[in-house]
Amino acid sequence: MTHSPADLERFFNPRSIAIIGASNKFATISGKPLRFLLEHGYKGKIYPINPKYDELMGVKVYPSVLAVPDPIDAALIAVNYRLVLPMLKQCVEKGIKYATVFASGFAESGPEGKELQRQIGELARETGMGVCGPNCQGMVNLKDGCVGGFSASLEIKPLRVGPIGYVTQSGALGYSIFNMAQESGVGFSYIASTGNEVDLHTLDFMAYMLEDPSTRMVVAYLEGIKNGKQFADLTDRALELGKPLVALKVGRSEIGMKAAASHTGSLTGSDATVEAFFNQKGILRTDDIEDMIDIAALMQRIPALPQGKGLGIITTSGGAGILVADTAEEIGVDLPALDPDTTAAIEAVIPAYGSALNPVDVTAAVINEADDFVKVMQALVAVETIDALVIVVTMISGASGAQMARDIVKMTGMTDKPIVVAWTAGERLMGDNLQILRDGEVQVFQSPVRATKAMGRLMRFGEFRNQMLARTSTGDVEETPAEVKARALEILAGADRALTEHQGKLLLAEYGIPVPGEGVATSVDSAVQIADGIGYPVVMKIDSPDIMHKTEAGGLRLDIGDADQVRAAYTEIMSNSRAYDANARLTGVLVQEMVIGGTEVIVGLNNDPQFGPTVMFGLGGIFVEIMKDVSLRVTPLTRDDAVSMIREIKSFPILDGARGRAKLDVDAIADVLLRVSRMAVDLRDHVAELDINPLLVLPQGQGVRVADALVVKK
Amino acid sequence: MTHSPADLERFFNPRSIAIIGASNKFATISGKPLRFLLEHGYKGKIYPINPKYDELMGVKVYPSVLAVPDPIDAALIAVNYRLVLPMLKQCVEKGIKYATVFASGFAESGPEGKELQRQIGELARETGMGVCGPNCQGMVNLKDGCVGGFSASLEIKPLRVGPIGYVTQSGALGYSIFNMAQESGVGFSYIASTGNEVDLHTLDFMAYMLEDPSTRMVVAYLEGIKNGKQFADLTDRALELGKPLVALKVGRSEIGMKAAASHTGSLTGSDATVEAFFNQKGILRTDDIEDMIDIAALMQRIPALPQGKGLGIITTSGGAGILVADTAEEIGVDLPALDPDTTAAIEAVIPAYGSALNPVDVTAAVINEADDFVKVMQALVAVETIDALVIVVTMISGASGAQMARDIVKMTGMTDKPIVVAWTAGERLMGDNLQILRDGEVQVFQSPVRATKAMGRLMRFGEFRNQMLARTSTGDVEETPAEVKARALEILAGADRALTEHQGKLLLAEYGIPVPGEGVATSVDSAVQIADGIGYPVVMKIDSPDIMHKTEAGGLRLDIGDADQVRAAYTEIMSNSRAYDANARLTGVLVQEMVIGGTEVIVGLNNDPQFGPTVMFGLGGIFVEIMKDVSLRVTPLTRDDAVSMIREIKSFPILDGARGRAKLDVDAIADVLLRVSRMAVDLRDHVAELDINPLLVLPQGQGVRVADALVVKK
Repeated sequence: MTHSPADLERFFNPRSIAIIGASNKFATISGKPLRFLLEHGYKGKIYPINPKYDELMGVKVYPSVLAVPDPIDAALIAVNYRLVLPMLKQCVEKGIKYATVFASGFAESGPEGKELQRQIGELARETGMGVCGPNCQGMVNLKDGCVGGFSASLEIKPLRVGPIGYVTQSGALGYSIFNMAQESGVGFSYIASTGNEVDLHTLDFMAYMLEDPSTRMVVAYLEGIKNGKQFADLTDRALELGKPLVALKVGRSEIGMKAAASHTGSLTGSDATVEAFFNQKGILRTDDIEDMIDIAALMQRIPALPQGKGLGIITTSGGAGILVADTAEEIGVDLPALDPDTTAAIEAVIPAYGSALNPVDVTAAVINEADDFVKVMQALVAVETIDALVIVVTMISGASGAQMARDIVKMTGMTDKPIVVAWTAGERLMGDNLQILRDGEVQVFQSPVRATKAMGRLMRFGEFRNQMLARTSTGDVEETPAEVKARALEILAGADRALTEHQGKLLLAEYGIPVPGEGVATSVDSAVQIADGIGYPVVMKIDSPDIMHKTEAGGLRLDIGDADQVRAAYTEIMSNSRAYDANARLTGVLVQEMVIGGTEVIVGLNNDPQFGPTVMFGLGGIFVEIMKDVSLRVTPLTRDDAVSMIREIKSFPILDGARGRAKLDVDAIADVLLRVSRMAVDLRDHVAELDINPLLVLPQGQGVRVADALVVKK
Repeated sequence: MTHSPADLERFFNPRSIAIIGASNKFATISGKPLRFLLEHGYKGKIYPINPKYDELMGVKVYPSVLAVPDPIDAALIAVNYRLVLPMLKQCVEKGIKYATVFASGFAESGPEGKELQRQIGELARETGMGVCGPNCQGMVNLKDGCVGGFSASLEIKPLRVGPIGYVTQSGALGYSIFNMAQESGVGFSYIASTGNEVDLHTLDFMAYMLEDPSTRMVVAYLEGIKNGKQFADLTDRALELGKPLVALKVGRSEIGMKAAASHTGSLTGSDATVEAFFNQKGILRTDDIEDMIDIAALMQRIPALPQGKGLGIITTSGGAGILVADTAEEIGVDLPALDPDTTAAIEAVIPAYGSALNPVDVTAAVINEADDFVKVMQALVAVETIDALVIVVTMISGASGAQMARDIVKMTGMTDKPIVVAWTAGERLMGDNLQILRDGEVQVFQSPVRATKAMGRLMRFGEFRNQMLARTSTGDVEETPAEVKARALEILAGADRALTEHQGKLLLAEYGIPVPGEGVATSVDSAVQIADGIGYPVVMKIDSPDIMHKTEAGGLRLDIGDADQVRAAYTEIMSNSRAYDANARLTGVLVQEMVIGGTEVIVGLNNDPQFGPTVMFGLGGIFVEIMKDVSLRVTPLTRDDAVSMIREIKSFPILDGARGRAKLDVDAIADVLLRVSRMAVDLRDHVAELDINPLLVLPQGQGVRVADALVVKK
């Protein structure tokens, strides 16, 4: 069941909380929640529940939630797994809206736990009470000191409040990431640990946080993704709001994926699909805890998202400038060239052995003259093509370093363009200067590479968002008319699980995908008639739902030039096929236009368990099979998606007129991809796979033709 | 001039040091060296030189080095750049062996500085005095407190001594890296900042450190590499000694490379060549300051290099295990499957919701039973295929965490297999436990990814080293007989700058590279005679040093089946070519065996300014030109290099019998690569480029043939 952000209001902002199983062991799961709520200054009402106590830490204890006279918004269930279900039933009876179950011992532990978990899920579905967990580490609303968890990471007081919302599918690792982020200065609005996700799940929580006005970014640690459609909606909303989604999605590798499946029991799709989806939707994927924290730390401190990918670099050491330039190229960020006026302004204040190009090397001598460094920063920020600055300071310590730090802080007050600092030195030597930056809310890293990567990710998100928002007309193909869909379903209904080539092409033709002229002949004469209609030369192939390998069966003839040859070919193909498989149903011979001179590409359609239909594209033969040179998108595709997936394959120059070839009809390919996408969405419950192999691409303006197609039903 | 390690003994271990230009401004370049030498406890004699003072910090000052009565090993020159040359001359007169010049204002500043630098270089060459710099930040011998520098990073006392040698081509960035490394616990033996490298240079210093018994690893920050041959020798020695070389080589990107060239004035070759060389020689290249420090930190703490790339993983959280598994796959490290006994031993001590596979998830419950965690570590270390362990601990704080830390420390005392810990939590919460590990000399990171990457790099180095040492016979082709080389030089001498196809093939044939039967005919009759000798069909091509595009000239005929056709072709080719270019020298018609059915590959030879001849390999046509699917090696190649460069291209399956093709003669290709390498080395002063395009590869056992070759002289 999906819970909307409005639904979840009382989960994240409960006015009252019951702690079922609260105890006086204040260092354990049952004791910590009460202590944490009190210590972090939760202002709502707390009802510890345990028949053994009258009072805990000065708070009245009730023997059961049913004994509490007032209404209760949420419950934390801190009892042994065997007692969870009866306690949940009491919660329902009491009218509690949300329950968070800490205990493990459920689906992750074996058949008994699995059955218990199933019952909890059923209870949630039947009663509408939202259940978080089991096997989770709870929720925290940092803004209100509402600490509904037991992680040791919550021992630190005060917790740092800030604009980052955080959802984690791993309790232990998740809260340890939270702790690392807190200690490196990242402030959070909300945290949710999702555990086994029997009811409330990751995307519900992310959606809530996204809508929260105090939250500027949502980060997530993910092992499995349950609902591709919901995730897609979430990303659209994130782009609209300008709040980046950042995800550490583990399980890239085969072993990692297996480990993830056994850890959370969630069915993971292929990582290639995840990667495609993230790229398509602007989700920032990270490979490590550290980059995730870096991006959050930077986002929390910049006034606004960067608006494009033009990066300005200022360094006090040429070496650091090279390192940043290398990183910028690697991550696809541009270093705009500076106009002559800007260059002149910079040259006026830096020594001859510096550099007034971008990267600008001001050298350590910049500290000698009071305003020089400020002038350089101002000059770069004023360049229109520069959207953000990376400033690298090396060994500038003492008063000069302090002055630079103050200058940078001042500069961030004078521009909306984001600035990040890398100060390549340790705390012991440079701590005071770093503190000036931190007090001034300027994000500072040690590593120039990490600083550049974090800024680069936000730059690319800002640019991606602007592109998405600027797209007025999508240019995508229109809605499918009802009669087309009806005819398509009819074709599918009349076919075996694997459609014949002719059936497949009829289906594609319904969706306006160009198939060559063709028809199935059931006699020598009808073959000639069809061939005459198409014009010569033609191709002839056996039409049978039982013969997959036509060449092997002797059921294929190419380049047939006239009616006599058609007659001969018909007889041959039929008798070869009969000899090949005496029991095969031979429904006739497919007579087909012979397309001459096209370049072979492949368009495929597959179904991902989480993201639904995906479209694959690549050049035919070795390019796909040996070079693995393919692109992938999750449906529905936009025209931009279709165009970018054609252009991103390495062999694209072959389609684009490389080495004196003709430019081929790339627009027509894009059109096919869009139509396949529309078909995939329309028929997602009916079509399992589609393989157009090959699609023949003719020169620009001459279109494409489906030479062969295999459709497999669900 | 190259300075051998023995030469440099008194540079790194001077018994006495003069500081020329020493002053009482103890916070500046001229004042810091004396203060640092005293504060860090240098035991040798110090002679501050300055006519203005009698004494500084209690040390007698001399007006000039010539006034010092005793011998001096080394001088630090801390005067303005204009005074450097006269001071160096005094050093020579005094018989000082090494001088380090701090001042900038030389080649990096303009023509005047460039000329001054040239004169310094000349002085060094003529007198044999070793000069470090100019524009450098000096040398440090940490073991003896001999601090010959002025970086603010040297303010920290005591400096941490350890097994890492460090050379940097950037002063400011270099010493800031040093500071970051020191503050994160890395101890150093020596540091050298090389500046403009007028005389002493990076590789000299690296070679010295490599031979130092207290140094276990040499790390370098590199912008340009000056002497590929010297570097190659250095890497061989590093493998012999089992001391990894680690390099942060910047200038990967185009902008970065330009910035590097302007920053150090060093001519940088292509980054692809650097990358090839590093891979070939086992140099560990890093992309960031942090990975460089990570590898050094880990090396300093493990008892021995890992012996292979089998990694065992233990985590307290399933999520962390997935993250480590993903990282392991990404960096090419294996996760060996565990045998049933090991699995059983682990299952006996972990809960049902843990995992006894590799990665082993012991869960947080492992802290409940005293010895369980130790048993799991012992079980994994005992597995023969496991060469190293990564242990990830998440939120285990307090006494349980302390016990785990102590258990890990104890474990490192019981095995030579390296162990690294990632403890994913901040210092504030986990500092005491982390301190137990640090006191026990166990390397601990926060990030599981960084821990795995650092260990993975050392594992791959250990494996690479073992492979290199195990190679008893190289199987490479033998030395070139003198007469072959003489004939090769003769062919080159008789040719234009670009050799004709026939001349090129004669050259290749000298080196035993299989060229098809062919001859140049100067008459119709001789053409027939040659063709008869070869056997039909043949190919005929115009032979002219002036016609590069034979097809365009009408100077090419394929598939000539008999003597009559040869006659006709001869006449046609000659008259077409004459019509194409009336002034071209037509030396005849090349009559050539027509090789049927070979697959086209390309073998190229180029010259890198630093690394000399490089060999390139790829499949013909689109594979090289569009897919950029090539491999590269620096000569000389070993047979392993040749085989690996064939196998590493993505299109290798096409040579290896993919999709029902014949397996092709890969051994014969390797043989050609080795012979080209030998030719490249023999003729490196004479041959600029070679392009065998195509080399036709026949099925296994049938060899290869050079179908066309272009050789360009230097």
